[in-house]
Amino acid sequence: MRILGIDPGLRITGYGCIEGDVVRPKIVEAGIFRLATGSPVPPVADRLVELDRDLRELIERVQPQIIAVEGLFAHYAHPETAVKMAHGRGVILLAAQQMGLTIMEFKPAEVKKAATGSGRATKVQMQEAIQALFGLATLPTPADVADALAIGVCGLRRAEAQSGISI
Amino acid sequence: MRILGIDPGLRITGYGCIEGDVVRPKIVEAGIFRLATGSPVPPVADRLVELDRDLRELIERVQPQIIAVEGLFAHYAHPETAVKMAHGRGVILLAAQQMGLTIMEFKPAEVKKAATGSGRATKVQMQEAIQALFGLATLPTPADVADALAIGVCGLRRAEAQSGISI
Repeated sequence: MRILGIDPGLRITGYGCIEGDVVRPKIVEAGIFRLATGSPVPPVADRLVELDRDLRELIERVQPQIIAVEGLFAHYAHPETAVKMAHGRGVILLAAQQMGLTIMEFKPAEVKKAATGSGRATKVQMQEAIQALFGLATLPTPADVADALAIGVCGLRRAEAQSGISI
Repeated sequence: MRILGIDPGLRITGYGCIEGDVVRPKIVEAGIFRLATGSPVPPVADRLVELDRDLRELIERVQPQIIAVEGLFAHYAHPETAVKMAHGRGVILLAAQQMGLTIMEFKPAEVKKAATGSGRATKVQMQEAIQALFGLATLPTPADVADALAIGVCGLRRAEAQSGISI
């Protein structure tokens, strides 16, 4: 079972494809899509085309069965940011659905709690928890990669719970 | 010059493709995409796939050069709605960009003012203004169609202004 965790952002989208069981998950591939920047900033539509292409290439390459993404629940304090990010999220959900993946959504606090035990973990705490879980030699950077891996771990847990395998 | 005006919504997306000059524009095709409903409501990803397919088929059929869409500027008072609609807007902008259309964005108040003279026009006032402008026998319904046509008219005006034709 392969799970692709995605942490969509305005400039950087983190991704982490993992497999195995929740006690000892393995990283298949992790990284970021760095969307074009410049001066002036490229229009949203250009970024969406890039994101769509990068994501579809990734899905073709790593062949996950499940995609796990964060809901936008926590961002309502910053509606402008949430609205911009939702454009990217729409493109991600479209590609995932068209490519036949099962889509799972998680609340940001749920992801933090699953990785660190606290729904209010800092970025560094998230990176340290992910480093420990996967036995990485160094901190996963940027933080978007750690977040994407943590979202993937949430997906793995839910998939295992749903399949009746004890965790 | 053909302009496709789009008014994206959660259940109904209005569209209106127009051509001609701003004094006497003509409707090429107008209508709505009624996204699947049901109980339980289909997941957002299913609706996005439908919207993507419907929109691409429409663009293939009416071959517009420009797509005009409302910005989400006015909806920050209802961030949850704005975030959901932004998913659809992302899919629309992606398709438009991939299909080579010029994208124009307008503020909701700008659209209302262009159609009726008032940035605070009601839905019925918008329908009446669009009925008069296009010389329609009946009120365009649902209101989403009138809104989409009004957005198209804004696109036509901007295109004519940019091309130096006096309006």
